[in-house]
Amino acid sequence: MANVNPPRGMRDFLPAEKARRERVLAVIRDRYRAHGFDEIETPVVEDYARLHSGMGGDNEKLSFSILKRGLDANDFVAAAGDVSALADLGLRFDLTVPLARFYATNRGDLPTVFRSIQMAPVWRAERPQKGRYRQFVQCDIDIIGDASARAEAELIVATLDTVDAFGLDGASVRINDRRALDAMLDVFGFTPEERPGVLITIDKLDKVGADGVVAELRERGVTASAVDAFETFMQRPQTLEFRPFGEDQIRKALPAGMPDDVIAHLAGIGEVVTAARGEAPLVFDPFLVRGMGYYTGTIFELAHPSVNYSLGGGGRYDGMIGRFLGQDVPAVGFSIGFERIVDLLENNEADSAPAVVLVHDKNVDVARLIALKAELVREGMRVRIEQRTKNLNGLLNRAQADGYGAFATVAADTTRETLELKQLG
Amino acid sequence: MANVNPPRGMRDFLPAEKARRERVLAVIRDRYRAHGFDEIETPVVEDYARLHSGMGGDNEKLSFSILKRGLDANDFVAAAGDVSALADLGLRFDLTVPLARFYATNRGDLPTVFRSIQMAPVWRAERPQKGRYRQFVQCDIDIIGDASARAEAELIVATLDTVDAFGLDGASVRINDRRALDAMLDVFGFTPEERPGVLITIDKLDKVGADGVVAELRERGVTASAVDAFETFMQRPQTLEFRPFGEDQIRKALPAGMPDDVIAHLAGIGEVVTAARGEAPLVFDPFLVRGMGYYTGTIFELAHPSVNYSLGGGGRYDGMIGRFLGQDVPAVGFSIGFERIVDLLENNEADSAPAVVLVHDKNVDVARLIALKAELVREGMRVRIEQRTKNLNGLLNRAQADGYGAFATVAADTTRETLELKQLG
Repeated sequence: MANVNPPRGMRDFLPAEKARRERVLAVIRDRYRAHGFDEIETPVVEDYARLHSGMGGDNEKLSFSILKRGLDANDFVAAAGDVSALADLGLRFDLTVPLARFYATNRGDLPTVFRSIQMAPVWRAERPQKGRYRQFVQCDIDIIGDASARAEAELIVATLDTVDAFGLDGASVRINDRRALDAMLDVFGFTPEERPGVLITIDKLDKVGADGVVAELRERGVTASAVDAFETFMQRPQTLEFRPFGEDQIRKALPAGMPDDVIAHLAGIGEVVTAARGEAPLVFDPFLVRGMGYYTGTIFELAHPSVNYSLGGGGRYDGMIGRFLGQDVPAVGFSIGFERIVDLLENNEADSAPAVVLVHDKNVDVARLIALKAELVREGMRVRIEQRTKNLNGLLNRAQADGYGAFATVAADTTRETLELKQLG
Repeated sequence: MANVNPPRGMRDFLPAEKARRERVLAVIRDRYRAHGFDEIETPVVEDYARLHSGMGGDNEKLSFSILKRGLDANDFVAAAGDVSALADLGLRFDLTVPLARFYATNRGDLPTVFRSIQMAPVWRAERPQKGRYRQFVQCDIDIIGDASARAEAELIVATLDTVDAFGLDGASVRINDRRALDAMLDVFGFTPEERPGVLITIDKLDKVGADGVVAELRERGVTASAVDAFETFMQRPQTLEFRPFGEDQIRKALPAGMPDDVIAHLAGIGEVVTAARGEAPLVFDPFLVRGMGYYTGTIFELAHPSVNYSLGGGGRYDGMIGRFLGQDVPAVGFSIGFERIVDLLENNEADSAPAVVLVHDKNVDVARLIALKAELVREGMRVRIEQRTKNLNGLLNRAQADGYGAFATVAADTTRETLELKQLG
């Protein structure tokens, strides 16, 4: 027998799981659309050069590359190991690079402020491990063409509304700004060259605490006086919960000398979200870093008390679209963690439409059986036919997992009038 | 400016088009589910060897191949032009090969008779032309594990019901059986070796007529007496509309000496579909061929009077799953032409939810504006915000194309109570 596994790190979805995924997608789509976002779609592949232009950060190295067609042995030799000579396309590793390309292609047909939804798979050739797959779905909303705090606020309100729709009470959004981070490191005295490494270390604050971060910074051998300043700063009243989210709290969380426009932008987000929701579960986190190099301003993460990982995140990337377009266009996006939400919602809702399994004997009149099925379908039911087996319970349990709520036995003389529906489970 | 086009032969979908595609998918999913089919999903890539095992026919040559990761210059030289040494995966070119692999992987968790839905993109490196794309969506239903005519009947009833749901009245299904075709060519006197070439010519009957087919068969230099027999047979009363679809009509359409079991299987399909629908728009077409080499029995195509191409098709492929599983499993599938149906349904339905555009001036209070938006969303509306531009009509026309049905102007003092909704268009 040939190997029949799906490709390494990738998954088949059986009916019950696929139905749950589609239900989650439908809720997300419905909420995002309600908030004025419009869904778009791009091809799953983009040009190889575009996927390796530096905008994708470390993800570029995880790209699956597609061979040009019609190559011969000479082409392979001539390439001398240079993949870019042999590959012309690659599977996208995120939805942000394709969105930037899409906007550049189609901006003449889009609103001045464009609010997009993308719900689609991406691919990364990562080492597979529990909960990490080589094909997974991302759900992004982005606002292109609005540099104001209104854009961040609309993204956050729509995302929190979506989280509410799943009944995940207690979610919060941790917010920071890359410009505030940079200014803070300047105030401490780190050099611009030291910044990327320092940020990688600071990103571990949740895991190793302030002492651990200070120790690692000393090991890095960065400017010692800056590490001292950081250590002193961390001895202020310790909290990562700067609430309510307003100018006073933000200033309190930061050293003196931060840029006023950045603080005003952050405070504006809090003001608008609070106005829209009556309450704003926003937390200012001065040490939130986020990995992607393309962020230029606000960054945020969605947190939920039931899990110790983020349920989504995003930020402002004003520079990226300009790379395609030749003119600067502000952009900000929020990606909700689709795969993580699916995992949180393990319960199986029954279908809204009544769904029935018709169990029949081997010698049933097939034409009558299918006519009966068609009649039930016309009545608005969802109908599965199953021939009776010795393990009737196994058969019915599987149907129940697939969302069927009732069954009925069909004998030779059963009609619609004599058909008796019994509840499953 | 960098090249910003999507990859050759592939498409971006803007909001109005994407919404239409999602509506069509939702209708197909709903109808197929009602008929007891269950949606599954497989990764978009499969192992390279699996995609080049001969089961995909000519489509295998159109496969996009994915480079192994971590290759170096020596690997490229050593491959000596053999792609299979460098590529380990490929984008699927259809949904049938992946389904056969899926069934082999997961059959322990599936019903004995498994009715699957797949609605997903496939990729073919064809020369792009009008209406032909390198990435397009296929919508397949398949029944695995049922060798009886009931399986074909369920597929056809579900497909006709779906076509009805789109209001495409007058659709019909042309049916034939590969075994009947083979037997007929035997009766005429063609040799088994001549059969593939003869079928390619007979497939042109619609376009070149009986005389054209006879002429091309003579050019092919196949057994002359067989061509004579074919020519004589074609001089019987000419029709391709063998209705009603029953044993008498099928026998009338074929030469004498056809296998009884094949005719009984075909007649059984007609009986069951007629019982389920009250009428059966089925046509027996003794010269329907269909291209794919994997078909082993019944073949069919969905036709509609508004178009001169098929709106879908399928057939029985009892041999394919056995290739993965090491045991024969009957299988039959019907693919509805998603892209063609989307093209037929050019009209834009308005959304079911009320959708409103809020037009505001530049100096609006953003917090109040977003609070007003959130209030309307909570009331069940879909809300887009637009800053007033000189070309207000252009702005409103685009919103209407995206499904928005109303707009309202928001001034500094507008509240929910004073907001005045006006219908668009």
